[in-house]
Amino acid sequence: MAPLYLALLHFPVYDKNHQVVTTAVTHMDIHDIARTACTFGVRRFYVVTPVHALRELSARLLEHWSSGWGANYNATRKDALALVGLTEDLDHTIVDVERDAGAPPMLLVTSARTQTPTISYAALRRLIAATERPLLVLFGTGWGLTEEIMQRADHQLPAVLGTGDYNHLSVRSAAAIILDRMCGRQEDLEEAHP
Amino acid sequence: MAPLYLALLHFPVYDKNHQVVTTAVTHMDIHDIARTACTFGVRRFYVVTPVHALRELSARLLEHWSSGWGANYNATRKDALALVGLTEDLDHTIVDVERDAGAPPMLLVTSARTQTPTISYAALRRLIAATERPLLVLFGTGWGLTEEIMQRADHQLPAVLGTGDYNHLSVRSAAAIILDRMCGRQEDLEEAHP
Repeated sequence: MAPLYLALLHFPVYDKNHQVVTTAVTHMDIHDIARTACTFGVRRFYVVTPVHALRELSARLLEHWSSGWGANYNATRKDALALVGLTEDLDHTIVDVERDAGAPPMLLVTSARTQTPTISYAALRRLIAATERPLLVLFGTGWGLTEEIMQRADHQLPAVLGTGDYNHLSVRSAAAIILDRMCGRQEDLEEAHP
Repeated sequence: MAPLYLALLHFPVYDKNHQVVTTAVTHMDIHDIARTACTFGVRRFYVVTPVHALRELSARLLEHWSSGWGANYNATRKDALALVGLTEDLDHTIVDVERDAGAPPMLLVTSARTQTPTISYAALRRLIAATERPLLVLFGTGWGLTEEIMQRADHQLPAVLGTGDYNHLSVRSAAAIILDRMCGRQEDLEEAHP
């Protein structure tokens, strides 16, 4: 079974005017996606930002919940946040996954704008079951990952679409849905969608 | 097709010591769940709290994004937050749904602790397709809805379980997964889980 890794990129991503920007790290992203990652057996969740001060700030947050006052107050947060890694860019993230898993990861990207996905969730589930190669799933903040990052990926996952035209899930919600589709217990899913 | 409504209850819910408490309203819950609700065609998303000052504060937040500076800055937020209603308790929420939909809602509850669900997601999808009766899905903050609320419901949905023992999704993430299981486009879901 493939070891799974997630990364939340704060650069390079688009802003709402399609300019390439660096977004701020928000603590809610770290908390929520770490808890989702922990739920679905992800090995490591990388918060990726080139801004040194934001990695420092995030490290302090993690310390609070791992060994500070928060560790006793809320042990479930401690467990989830133990999965979080702080890296400065995608290349360093890939190196860290390779160091941990012993092989370079296959890159998967997600976007609300994906028109032509290259793998279905069904195929991805089969891939996860069949390979030992690590998979690194990239999520973008802001208005999404740049084309350059999308093109680097081995596969583009289908966009999560709703019932109408509205297509603006938070990255926290999108990550939860995608992990459920990728890794939710099969018996639950079959019951959910027979 | 059943009109869908969501409610996020801040009372009565448990704290981590199983005491019944009133939790604080957090803006991230409103934003994220409103965007999820908008994505999946929910008619109205109620933020339910008995604390008058927190309803006032929430109303100011909504005004900022609906007609204040935020309305121009981010129109997609405006669309999502237009779904938000502020109510003081479950009974007032039910009355409001009945006023909007013309019939009293069927109550569905979700909990990470549900051991014996009374309806599967598959059955719920069929129910949504077959009935005109409104459905109101209740989510709890803190450590979850009280037994009293659980017992009032017509149906308890299956808990969202991960791959291991960790069972501490944020309510924002759980709501996203549950809405996707309930209402995600059937063709996407079949592709996802053939």
